[in-house]
Amino acid sequence: MMGMTITEKILAAHAGMDRVEPGQLINVKVDLVLGNDITAPVAIREFDRIGVESVWDRDRVVLVPDHFVPNKDIMSAEQAKQLREFAHKHRLTNYFEVGRMGVEHCLLPEQGLVGPGDLVIGADSHTCTYGGLGAFSTGVGSTDLAAAMALGETWLKVPESIKFIFNGELPKWVGGKDLILYIIGQIGVDGALYMAMEFTGPSIAALSIDGRMTMANMAIEAGAKNGIVAPDEITRRYVENRAKRPYTFYQSDPDANYTQVIEIDVSKLEPQVAFPHLPENTRPVSEATDVAIDQVVIGSCTNGRLSDLQLAAEVLKGHRVSDNLRLLVIPGTQEIYLQAVKEGLVEQFINAGAAVSTPTCGPCLGGHMGILAKGERALATTNRNFVGRMGHPESEVYLCNPAVAAASAVLGRIAAPWEVE
Amino acid sequence: MMGMTITEKILAAHAGMDRVEPGQLINVKVDLVLGNDITAPVAIREFDRIGVESVWDRDRVVLVPDHFVPNKDIMSAEQAKQLREFAHKHRLTNYFEVGRMGVEHCLLPEQGLVGPGDLVIGADSHTCTYGGLGAFSTGVGSTDLAAAMALGETWLKVPESIKFIFNGELPKWVGGKDLILYIIGQIGVDGALYMAMEFTGPSIAALSIDGRMTMANMAIEAGAKNGIVAPDEITRRYVENRAKRPYTFYQSDPDANYTQVIEIDVSKLEPQVAFPHLPENTRPVSEATDVAIDQVVIGSCTNGRLSDLQLAAEVLKGHRVSDNLRLLVIPGTQEIYLQAVKEGLVEQFINAGAAVSTPTCGPCLGGHMGILAKGERALATTNRNFVGRMGHPESEVYLCNPAVAAASAVLGRIAAPWEVE
Repeated sequence: MMGMTITEKILAAHAGMDRVEPGQLINVKVDLVLGNDITAPVAIREFDRIGVESVWDRDRVVLVPDHFVPNKDIMSAEQAKQLREFAHKHRLTNYFEVGRMGVEHCLLPEQGLVGPGDLVIGADSHTCTYGGLGAFSTGVGSTDLAAAMALGETWLKVPESIKFIFNGELPKWVGGKDLILYIIGQIGVDGALYMAMEFTGPSIAALSIDGRMTMANMAIEAGAKNGIVAPDEITRRYVENRAKRPYTFYQSDPDANYTQVIEIDVSKLEPQVAFPHLPENTRPVSEATDVAIDQVVIGSCTNGRLSDLQLAAEVLKGHRVSDNLRLLVIPGTQEIYLQAVKEGLVEQFINAGAAVSTPTCGPCLGGHMGILAKGERALATTNRNFVGRMGHPESEVYLCNPAVAAASAVLGRIAAPWEVE
Repeated sequence: MMGMTITEKILAAHAGMDRVEPGQLINVKVDLVLGNDITAPVAIREFDRIGVESVWDRDRVVLVPDHFVPNKDIMSAEQAKQLREFAHKHRLTNYFEVGRMGVEHCLLPEQGLVGPGDLVIGADSHTCTYGGLGAFSTGVGSTDLAAAMALGETWLKVPESIKFIFNGELPKWVGGKDLILYIIGQIGVDGALYMAMEFTGPSIAALSIDGRMTMANMAIEAGAKNGIVAPDEITRRYVENRAKRPYTFYQSDPDANYTQVIEIDVSKLEPQVAFPHLPENTRPVSEATDVAIDQVVIGSCTNGRLSDLQLAAEVLKGHRVSDNLRLLVIPGTQEIYLQAVKEGLVEQFINAGAAVSTPTCGPCLGGHMGILAKGERALATTNRNFVGRMGHPESEVYLCNPAVAAASAVLGRIAAPWEVE
């Protein structure tokens, strides 16, 4: 009998089965479910229609208002209020109020609410982030969230897996964001449709948890069901003092079955920039340096972690933001914000002429806090650059890592970090 | 011949006249004109219709995008873009970009752009703030702003003056905000209609510039044309290292003419709370402590200065924000934000469970960053509590000083600072 991938093993364990096969429809127990201020109100309405008295487990239904908070308007205030009232009614232990919250996919790992071997669903497409910890996690619709809030279960089709093997030492200024942008550039935005993207190889073994989460986060941008990195010592160090539940380290068997195996040599890779209007439109940064920009955003569930802010601050050191440009820095969580204050990063950002905001998804999804006017161009460490994603249908979004973002904020155009060294 | 008030003297000087009388229509030279992202786009349209080639003085036309920035939506992004393009076209030296800006009425005094004896008009009702420095400043409509941007002049009707004499030592936790709320409570929101409110007496002589600006800021809430405090040594210390132009100290003559003279003994005054839906609905805080609240806002052109944040931090020390409440802290300018980081205030706010945002007027005017849902109640250090001011028409706003705001954030209801000592 053939071996299993890490994704198949996690799914089998949660289905109560010895093994699962790609394409199989299975019912699985979930370890945690997640909703935010956009998706949970819909789920709450459906939940109330189901007619059960209480949520499946008040410790495992997590609600995070993060998309439009602090509230941008009356409608978003009403949505946040629905979360708050539901959390209160069901005595949820993991409702995160404004001022004690963060961007959901930065917050949950930090709070130890997700760990290796978990099966997590969330009504947000970037729920796949937790694959960076060796969990199976994926985005679902609000109706599936409602059912899981009631039952603690959901159904899934077991995905096929693609194995990516990254070889070589990462050049300076190249990180997880560049690896994932590069492979999306190679396989396209539907290159892993409903598949598991398994990231392996020496370059991944050397990558930080933050970098791994950035990669898993954007698996959805290649159409994947999930992205995943097998847990190791780096993972253990990250989770051992955080985890609120026991965790399990799964590894793919050597004879596991992959639809495709793709090898990448990273040793010559440059930082990548995704041009409008798809994440697959990637180019090396040195081929992107003639693009003038109006706004730079550093933050989001993709690159709003402490190491991202540290990297941006390192590049900004001794520089000022270009006169004609707005630089928005949005720490992913209150904890990251606090640490950034303590380390002097916030002081440095303010001195450089950046606006530092309280955690929010805001600009990434064109929600608030940095919306683009007609014809404006933004460079962002976020995850999507679809038409009108950050504002006006005739605005543009370019995607990159935090070092490229910082260098570009200084020079007023897309720039490589080594241009400001 | 009868003496003149400080307001009359400033107006006469700018009209090129020896004296002016209340009720007189005069044409005055202005020292500075101000527009923001709500009002300047209208003024710019009118300016372009006038057909002049350039602004009257590129150093004295100040544009500050502060109401809806970082932009909340496409419309506000388009408005901010109009400011930016106008500033660029006319090479304005005092255009303040996101990340290098602040709430206009905190920013201009800090930057030394307004000083004693100045005559300043701005297309924002709280332009009267600069009276705290001994300037005549008042809000105008966008059309008047457009004309002044072109000509450096405007017309005014000379206001009658009311003299307020504050006697006695300010009790602990009582400051400028409480004095102005108290007198608005006494005279009503139309109690000084088109008049100059002149704040005098030993309590004012002992008051900081921040406290004086808070008082002048809210003169408009009594319907006044302007509020003013005669400049003194405290004023000199504030302006001497900031002023970008020469300034003049005016004083009212002992035999100046006042419509009314009102004496207030402050020695027994409590912090004041203005109940919905008018700033005149004031009560001592001890008569307001049964009001549960959902959100507390510390910030705005009224109380977003460093001393306001220091006061709030002092009260918050050792406490956490109540579980059921959001506390938003919004420094008035980047400089205030920076100083608050350096002094450890931001760290303390984050640790307490507050959301600390980049400078914006946002929640004060129901713009963004803290809008209320139906039935919600906010306590705010802002200046207006009209129906629907901060969001839903069925929400409520209560006004207070930063110490009351902080204590209330801890207890989840309106509270006096001494309740958490």
